[in-house]
Amino acid sequence: MISDFHPRKDNQTMRAGPSQEDIRRHNLGALLRHVHLGGPTSRAELTSKMGLNRSTIMALTSDLTAAGLVREELPRETGRAGRPSLVVRPESSRVYVFAFDVGPDRLAVARVGLGGTILDRREAVRRRGPFELEELAGMLAGFARQMRRKTRADTVCVGAAAAVSGGVRKGDGVIRFGPNLQAEEIPFGEELGRRLGLGLPVSVGNDANLAALAEHSRGVGVAVRDLIYLHGDVGIGGGIIAGGHLLGGHEGYGGEVGHMVVNPGGRVCGCGSRGCLEAEVGERALLEAAGKLGGGQHGRDAVRAVVDAADRGDIVAQEALKRVGDWLGLGVANLVNIFNPEMVIFGGMLREIYLGSAAQVRSRMALHAMAPQRERLRLRTSALADDATLVGAAELAFAHVLADPLEVLARVTG
Amino acid sequence: MISDFHPRKDNQTMRAGPSQEDIRRHNLGALLRHVHLGGPTSRAELTSKMGLNRSTIMALTSDLTAAGLVREELPRETGRAGRPSLVVRPESSRVYVFAFDVGPDRLAVARVGLGGTILDRREAVRRRGPFELEELAGMLAGFARQMRRKTRADTVCVGAAAAVSGGVRKGDGVIRFGPNLQAEEIPFGEELGRRLGLGLPVSVGNDANLAALAEHSRGVGVAVRDLIYLHGDVGIGGGIIAGGHLLGGHEGYGGEVGHMVVNPGGRVCGCGSRGCLEAEVGERALLEAAGKLGGGQHGRDAVRAVVDAADRGDIVAQEALKRVGDWLGLGVANLVNIFNPEMVIFGGMLREIYLGSAAQVRSRMALHAMAPQRERLRLRTSALADDATLVGAAELAFAHVLADPLEVLARVTG
Repeated sequence: MISDFHPRKDNQTMRAGPSQEDIRRHNLGALLRHVHLGGPTSRAELTSKMGLNRSTIMALTSDLTAAGLVREELPRETGRAGRPSLVVRPESSRVYVFAFDVGPDRLAVARVGLGGTILDRREAVRRRGPFELEELAGMLAGFARQMRRKTRADTVCVGAAAAVSGGVRKGDGVIRFGPNLQAEEIPFGEELGRRLGLGLPVSVGNDANLAALAEHSRGVGVAVRDLIYLHGDVGIGGGIIAGGHLLGGHEGYGGEVGHMVVNPGGRVCGCGSRGCLEAEVGERALLEAAGKLGGGQHGRDAVRAVVDAADRGDIVAQEALKRVGDWLGLGVANLVNIFNPEMVIFGGMLREIYLGSAAQVRSRMALHAMAPQRERLRLRTSALADDATLVGAAELAFAHVLADPLEVLARVTG
Repeated sequence: MISDFHPRKDNQTMRAGPSQEDIRRHNLGALLRHVHLGGPTSRAELTSKMGLNRSTIMALTSDLTAAGLVREELPRETGRAGRPSLVVRPESSRVYVFAFDVGPDRLAVARVGLGGTILDRREAVRRRGPFELEELAGMLAGFARQMRRKTRADTVCVGAAAAVSGGVRKGDGVIRFGPNLQAEEIPFGEELGRRLGLGLPVSVGNDANLAALAEHSRGVGVAVRDLIYLHGDVGIGGGIIAGGHLLGGHEGYGGEVGHMVVNPGGRVCGCGSRGCLEAEVGERALLEAAGKLGGGQHGRDAVRAVVDAADRGDIVAQEALKRVGDWLGLGVANLVNIFNPEMVIFGGMLREIYLGSAAQVRSRMALHAMAPQRERLRLRTSALADDATLVGAAELAFAHVLADPLEVLARVTG
C-alpha cells in the first residue's frame, strides 16, 4: 500500500484560489453539518473545532439563524464562572426532510428534523410480489402528505430521499435491479417526486449503501474511515466506506457483496448464479436449514424465531445457524482480505444472525482472514438497528442543504 | 449508490483559504505533473489544460526552468503560421529517481528520468528462499551505485522507492508479510535507504498496488477512475483504484484479492488457508495441473511454456489452463460484483494466463457477474507488461517532487 500517492487528485489545478463567496458557503455548510451531526454546540467549541476565529463563527451563525436553520440560546448550566458561550442548535422542529425506505417486507416514511431527529413516521407491511410503481409511490406520498398536514405553518421541507433494496444507477436514480423487490429499470425517484408534489427531486440510494453512511455519520462507525456494513434482509447487501468515501463503482453498483460466490455450485441465487453469499446466508437459507421454510413464515420475525430457538437449545436451529455462520464467516474473511477495514458492521437481519453465530463467524475468520488484516479488526452490530436505512436516506436528503445552506433554503421557501 | 454525499470530506474547514504560496506550490506541482505524465507540452496547451492565464504559466515555467526541472524549446515544426508556442519538456536526463522491484524470482533496479523514461537498468535472478535483508539491500544498492557512477555531474537523484511482493505497513514501509518472498516484519525501506547513502528515504509499496498506479498513470487505465489490476507472479496480488484513489485500507494491506477464498476446501495456500484465488490460479496450480511441477521448472518461463503448449494443441496444457481460467473467472466475477469497476487489467504472469484462457474467464463471468456490472466492463492486459511494478515504484519515488518541486529540489541539491 502507498500512503501518499494520488495521481489524479493533484491533477486538479487551483486557479486563483476559492473566492470569498466559496469560502463563506463552505463554512456555512461546515458549521451546519457540525450541529446537524454533533448536536447543540457552543460558539466557543465551534471556534476551536472549526479552526475559525470568534467573529467568523458569529457571522456564520448569524446568517444561519436569519435563514431559520439554527438558533442560539443560553446553555442550561455551565458550572463555570464568567459569561457563558451561546449554544448553537439546529432548528430540528422547523427544518426537515422526508426519508423513505422500500424493503422487501416493509415500507417506511419518516419526517426527520435537521439534527437527525425522527419527528414522525409511518410504516406499512409490503407484501412480497412484483414492484407496482404507481401504487407504491402513491402510498408513500400519501403517508408524507398525512405527516405534512400535521406540521406547523412555519416548517419547511428541504429535501427527500429514498433507500431501496436494489441497485440504483448513478445519475438518474433508476432502480436498475432489485430481485428481492422484483424490480427492474424502475424510475422510482422521478415518480415519487411527482407524487410528492413538493417541487423537490427525490434522491435514491441502495439501502445497504445508505445504512453504511448512516452508521458512519451517526452510528457505530463514526470516525472510522474504512468500514464494511453488511445488511441482511431477504438478501445480503453491502455498503463500503474506503478511505472515508462510499465505494460507488463506475456506475453506482459498488458494494454488491451479496453476490460474491462463496460456495461454488451451492444454492441457487435470485441473481441466477449459485452459491452467492446471499444464497448461503440469506433468510431463505437459514429458514430452510432450520426446517421452517413454507407455512407462510418469513421475514425478520421468522429469523428471530430461529435465533431464539437456538438460544433455548433447539439443536436443529443451532445447526442451521452454524451452517449459515460458516458461510458468513468465509464471506467476511474474503472482504477483510480485500479491503483491510477497521470495522465490519452487521445490520438488518444479519444483526441477529451474527449474534447467534459469532463463534462460528470468528472461527472461520481465523481460518481464512490473514493475520495482519484480522488483528485489529472490530466486528460490531449496527447501532441504528432497523432505522439505519431510513436514517441513511435522511442524510442523503440533507446532503444538498449541507452543501449550500442558504441557496437551498432560499429555493424551497422561494 | 449515492453520487454526491461525502460526510467526511466536507467536515474539513477552509480557514481563510489557501495562501498565495500554497497556490504557487500546488500549481508548480500540477504543471510539472502535466509534462511528467503527458510529455512535452506547449505553453499554449498548458494554458488551456490548466485553466491558468499565460502570464501565470510563464512564471511557473520560468521557476521550474531555473530549478532545472524543465526546459523550454522551440517546437520542431508547427505547420502553422505565426509565432510558435514554446514547448515545455521535463529534464528527463538530468532529474531522476531510483526504482527497485523485489519479486520472488527477479530483482530489478532502474534509473528513471522525470517524464518516466527508463534511462538505465539492472536485473538479477533471485533464487527462491528466505529473505536475506542485508544481502539483498546490499546488492540493490550496489546496482544503483554502478548506475550512478555513469551519470554526468549535473544529474540529480530526487527520490527512491521499491515495489515488493508482500504486504507493506502504512507509515513505516515495513514488509509485514510476504509469503512468496519468505519475508515477515522486514524493515526494508530503512535498510535500503541506509545502504544507498543518498540521504533520501526509500518509500516501499506492494507491487500490485504500484503496478495498478502505473497502469492508471501511464498504461491502459489512464483516465479510468474505477479499475482492478490483478498481478500474477508466484502468487496473485491486486491493486484497486476506486473513485480515482488507490484502496489502501486501514493499515495499508488493502487489495489482497489473492486470498479471497474461491474454492472452499480447495488447494492449500501459502497463507495457511485453503482454496484462495492464489492457490487455485497461481503458478503452482497451473504447473501442477499441466504435469510440469518439479523438475526444477518454475517462474514466468515455465508458465509461458504451458500457454504455448496449449496453443499448439497439447490437451493436458489446455485442460490445465481451462481449470485455472475457471477459478480466475469466478474470482474476477466476485470482484466485479463487489467493486463495479470500469476495467479489469491482467498483469504479470496473469497476462499470459488470461490470454490463454479468455474464453473460460468470460464464460465464468457470464455465470457469476451481475449483468449491470458486466455489460460495460472492459477486460484488458497490462500495457506496461513486466515493467509495471518498476514504473509504479518510480511514480511513487516521484510523488514527493511533484507535490512540492522547488522544496524537494532545494533539499537534494542543497
